[in-house]
Amino acid sequence: MVFLDELNMNEFSERVKKGCLVIVPMGSVEEHGEHLPLCTDSIQSEALAKRLAEKFDAMIAPAIRYGECQSTRNFPGTITISFDTLRALVREVLEELHRNGVRRILVLTGHAGRAHMIALREAGREVVFKHPDLKLMVLSDYEIAYELLGKGFDKDDGHAGTIETSRVMQLRPELVKGRPKKAKARPPKYLIVHDPERFIPRGIWGDPTKATAEKGKKVEDYVFKELVKMIRKDLMS
Amino acid sequence: MVFLDELNMNEFSERVKKGCLVIVPMGSVEEHGEHLPLCTDSIQSEALAKRLAEKFDAMIAPAIRYGECQSTRNFPGTITISFDTLRALVREVLEELHRNGVRRILVLTGHAGRAHMIALREAGREVVFKHPDLKLMVLSDYEIAYELLGKGFDKDDGHAGTIETSRVMQLRPELVKGRPKKAKARPPKYLIVHDPERFIPRGIWGDPTKATAEKGKKVEDYVFKELVKMIRKDLMS
Amino acid sequence: MVFLDELNMNEFSERVKKGCLVIVPMGSVEEHGEHLPLCTDSIQSEALAKRLAEKFDAMIAPAIRYGECQSTRNFPGTITISFDTLRALVREVLEELHRNGVRRILVLTGHAGRAHMIALREAGREVVFKHPDLKLMVLSDYEIAYELLGKGFDKDDGHAGTIETSRVMQLRPELVKGRPKKAKARPPKYLIVHDPERFIPRGIWGDPTKATAEKGKKVEDYVFKELVKMIRKDLMS
Amino acid sequence: MVFLDELNMNEFSERVKKGCLVIVPMGSVEEHGEHLPLCTDSIQSEALAKRLAEKFDAMIAPAIRYGECQSTRNFPGTITISFDTLRALVREVLEELHRNGVRRILVLTGHAGRAHMIALREAGREVVFKHPDLKLMVLSDYEIAYELLGKGFDKDDGHAGTIETSRVMQLRPELVKGRPKKAKARPPKYLIVHDPERFIPRGIWGDPTKATAEKGKKVEDYVFKELVKMIRKDLMS
Amino acid sequence: MVFLDELNMNEFSERVKKGCLVIVPMGSVEEHGEHLPLCTDSIQSEALAKRLAEKFDAMIAPAIRYGECQSTRNFPGTITISFDTLRALVREVLEELHRNGVRRILVLTGHAGRAHMIALREAGREVVFKHPDLKLMVLSDYEIAYELLGKGFDKDDGHAGTIETSRVMQLRPELVKGRPKKAKARPPKYLIVHDPERFIPRGIWGDPTKATAEKGKKVEDYVFKELVKMIRKDLMS
Amino acid sequence: MVFLDELNMNEFSERVKKGCLVIVPMGSVEEHGEHLPLCTDSIQSEALAKRLAEKFDAMIAPAIRYGECQSTRNFPGTITISFDTLRALVREVLEELHRNGVRRILVLTGHAGRAHMIALREAGREVVFKHPDLKLMVLSDYEIAYELLGKGFDKDDGHAGTIETSRVMQLRPELVKGRPKKAKARPPKYLIVHDPERFIPRGIWGDPTKATAEKGKKVEDYVFKELVKMIRKDLMS
Repeated sequence: MVFLDELNMNEFSERVKKGCLVIVPMGSVEEHGEHLPLCTDSIQSEALAKRLAEKFDAMIAPAIRYGECQSTRNFPGTITISFDTLRALVREVLEELHRNGVRRILVLTGHAGRAHMIALREAGREVVFKHPDLKLMVLSDYEIAYELLGKGFDKDDGHAGTIETSRVMQLRPELVKGRPKKAKARPPKYLIVHDPERFIPRGIWGDPTKATAEKGKKVEDYVFKELVKMIRKDLMS
Repeated sequence: MVFLDELNMNEFSERVKKGCLVIVPMGSVEEHGEHLPLCTDSIQSEALAKRLAEKFDAMIAPAIRYGECQSTRNFPGTITISFDTLRALVREVLEELHRNGVRRILVLTGHAGRAHMIALREAGREVVFKHPDLKLMVLSDYEIAYELLGKGFDKDDGHAGTIETSRVMQLRPELVKGRPKKAKARPPKYLIVHDPERFIPRGIWGDPTKATAEKGKKVEDYVFKELVKMIRKDLMS
Repeated sequence: MVFLDELNMNEFSERVKKGCLVIVPMGSVEEHGEHLPLCTDSIQSEALAKRLAEKFDAMIAPAIRYGECQSTRNFPGTITISFDTLRALVREVLEELHRNGVRRILVLTGHAGRAHMIALREAGREVVFKHPDLKLMVLSDYEIAYELLGKGFDKDDGHAGTIETSRVMQLRPELVKGRPKKAKARPPKYLIVHDPERFIPRGIWGDPTKATAEKGKKVEDYVFKELVKMIRKDLMS
Repeated sequence: MVFLDELNMNEFSERVKKGCLVIVPMGSVEEHGEHLPLCTDSIQSEALAKRLAEKFDAMIAPAIRYGECQSTRNFPGTITISFDTLRALVREVLEELHRNGVRRILVLTGHAGRAHMIALREAGREVVFKHPDLKLMVLSDYEIAYELLGKGFDKDDGHAGTIETSRVMQLRPELVKGRPKKAKARPPKYLIVHDPERFIPRGIWGDPTKATAEKGKKVEDYVFKELVKMIRKDLMS
Repeated sequence: MVFLDELNMNEFSERVKKGCLVIVPMGSVEEHGEHLPLCTDSIQSEALAKRLAEKFDAMIAPAIRYGECQSTRNFPGTITISFDTLRALVREVLEELHRNGVRRILVLTGHAGRAHMIALREAGREVVFKHPDLKLMVLSDYEIAYELLGKGFDKDDGHAGTIETSRVMQLRPELVKGRPKKAKARPPKYLIVHDPERFIPRGIWGDPTKATAEKGKKVEDYVFKELVKMIRKDLMS
Repeated sequence: MVFLDELNMNEFSERVKKGCLVIVPMGSVEEHGEHLPLCTDSIQSEALAKRLAEKFDAMIAPAIRYGECQSTRNFPGTITISFDTLRALVREVLEELHRNGVRRILVLTGHAGRAHMIALREAGREVVFKHPDLKLMVLSDYEIAYELLGKGFDKDDGHAGTIETSRVMQLRPELVKGRPKKAKARPPKYLIVHDPERFIPRGIWGDPTKATAEKGKKVEDYVFKELVKMIRKDLMS
């Protein structure tokens, strides 16, 4: 497992010449109920990044732990940066990696808000349109994890619910403080509201009481396996 | 049915004082296969806007027929504007409507690309965060229409497929030029590519040969009915 | 007469290959006294666009009905977008038309405010500086219509006055609600004021009582004839 | 005559408290034929600023000698800054003067290009909309000087022509190098071209051979007299 | 020692209410000779952040490991983000911390490039001007460490030289790969060059051969002690 | 001595062809105690520009007398423009000079605030990175003048202190109003404050009572001599 910035300039240079994959893990500082830490999103993508880096002998770029989290911003602890700044930051990091010769990049984000995802994808699009020789994949591990909804997990499990609580229990059990009871989040689909937190009572969407470290392991393994397939097919081919 | 800008300043002023709903129809100039017109998205949202305006005695603001269409930009006829300009345009129109006293707005877009939708919603969010007294709904009629996938329509019908062809056949039959055979679009989910058109052969996603005006009518009625419910519940309450 | 976006991608492509002219009609949502509709500017440029499109077998791009109208913004119904957004929107539409192969464009705006005109021209300038193979004309029909001031029309006729009322009477008589008495607008030439509406009493500049549909026809014909000459000389040569 | 920045902070403060007018002279670095200096525009507005400052006991802010000169940019010596930077610069200077307590400002520019003028006026508009207690006048001395066209001067005299050459002969005779023969500039009114210099042969619009220092004096006196009237009426009232 | 984002929303909230200090550690991804890792700057500020957090019971916000590194950008491994993006990112993080109730912040950066520092300080200035109740300190540990130049260390020691090599030997000895010989960097003071790397041979400024872990410890302790004094005096008072 | 904009287009063109150096003098409108004028910074750089222009047969571009002066903005008379506008202005002027064929430029600023300097250098960097054939030097004469601190001048002399007062006494004695007593400015090094003026009592940093015109002459000569050496070595080689 290799952190890109723990290399020195020559070591970095050699790896780049070999066509080494770079993984950029992203997270957020965001409320996740009263039981999960603010870094919940970061923990998950960074853990996956490590497993993937070992598998593919990839380099892990410094994690970006700030994301766009408008819908939970009125809960304590959420630190949201703007769409424009997030997009610019990711665009510049990708552009710089390409300038340095990197040609395979995976941007993996634990936070999966809609606007957040578009910011990353727009950033990626701009760089790829400019540099068609760059193989770039941008996704959230939750886009894969939610394929398990209805398959051993409640159909409407979500933010800080069973899956997320299970994963943190497996990865950083010491950071899980109890398991609050189920909450039904009902954010309006189409209405734009100034107080979205009103629709996510206690910052939870799903049932943390059903969470176990075993379930977390199962999700981790599933997401990892799917990611390995995708990376093989689309980035390392 | 009332077009906002066919009123004069006094007529407009009176309607605003009564709490009149304003509908902003949006579309795109985008390829829709070799059989559907570039204004396909505009036709649909504007037709719905007219029905809704009659139902709710609403005003229809001038349609915005330019949208964000990066993924089809390399087909002839697609005219895409940038995320930032689209967001700014919508934000300013909403801001100005609010400055004029309007407090209920529906932004209804026939184009439903992911980045396009986020541009509209980010615009809406900025205005609503600033003016919490504004009731604002932003959606694409396709977010509703696709609830019918698997219910009388193929599960993976999409862009210029059965539903869309049917709707244009019902609304503007003279603009439909034949019904090309089915196409399987397979745009990469996570890979960012510089040539997305390669994954939408002939600009079609679905089976136009199954389209009929009757099916179009059915979709129109379904979407209309659902919109009426939502508007009653969330905007006119 | 052909609306660009009523074509499908192949039809559009063929016309572009033949060097077809594209007309982009622009208007505004702006008060025009208590007798003329907010879409007064749009009506006029769009009507001319249709006549010109027939004459030159041109394509009409979707109209942009939002403009920069700072000086009348405090009257009800005026919806003004910013200089920057207007310029960006027009620049991107022109840029996209050029990317699609279009090489002759007429931007025709019914609204003729000074800043509005500069926004369009700056947009045009940026695109033409980048693409010298583009023939582009940007003007307001009022830059031509006002050549008639003092020739059958009062010398200081202006916004919502005799000429404009006459034209709307000729084009959309059902939208004209009475003919209010003359008003003398005296907007300061050099002083920048925060309440420009104070200098345009009742939003009128000129004498609507002298308006007739016949005069409107005469103006329409004059502007059309002049535009035909210009287009022949500068765009279609 | 007082240059604002030759005062120290206390002297400045006292004058501001008395409601002192501030004049911001603006010019350009722009070709003016082969006979007039690049600072032609600056010379004229700064000379007027000095006369006006004496008359009204005003302060003259540091001159801004860079302007927007796109149409002559391909002649040697033209240094044009962008619309956006010019607008921002003027906006910030006005904003800062207001923050310092100044409530009467005249922006007087020797350069009078259309986009240049709009940049200044948009800057002014933003500041006045925000601070309605500011009395602000923005104009070019050429908007007044051209009232003399047809009155002792050729009707289509313009850039580096009789009037302008005469004024520089009167103000800075040592900078005038001969008087080249007449040129007929015919910049296209509506066509946007990438080579506008082609339509201004030798960078001249008018007849420099008719210029005399006496005529220059006459123009200076006329513009000064008109400005005095306007300032009395609109700024010092 | 507490990482801000390892807390959950309630824990965070309680600490904020108590007036807890937040430390934002910043670094860079930048070449540091062939012997030191790209994360050299990050290592140092994050180590200090941990000691300070223990001392003051502070929270450590997620580190920002991307900085502005234009002068070394042409060495392999340097990933530089723009001044504007860095400033925006820091401004938004500070703004969000303040919105969450935080009133004492230390931004501590291991990278100390001139433009990088100004980006951070401009960001800070904007936030403090808006929120005068925020106590904010922005500095690089190198602004303190270089007080030791000439006091046990060469006078012109710098980037990847004795001090920096010593500190990394003390903090992360396994990341130090040999000690290359001394290099004399002579970046031009006033000339702006397009190839600044030419003036920093082998990316080193100083003498790595004189480095020892003991010296590193000494520097660490000195900087820590000075920081403690400053924080006590200016942030915790 | 030649002012660039007193040339006409042909004269300018000839000088450019000969590789003539261009000097861009910059200043500020900023308080300098109760004894020195607001244009103190401008006076000094413009005087040096004239001497240098004579020495090197250079052209002096129009001075930019507005700068970034955030730290003294709350004293009367300080007019500060934003970092972004200053950077854009300088970038565009440099870009335009290069477009005109100029290949040697000295930007010499009398104001030397940290952010102000970085704005100029960032502007320069962007232009040089784009045009490596441009020789560009950016500095403040105070970066040289302060080499004399401790050498005949107090070690902590600064803004409006002995050196600056002496220089203005030598250059524009009529603008010096008395010599106020010494002041100890103690702006916080790392703390970002909203009221920086509190730390610069009476806007002075140093001892004006020790100032003499002779000392001013000595500083002028020293700075001039050093500049001549630098220009010879780096710009004219």
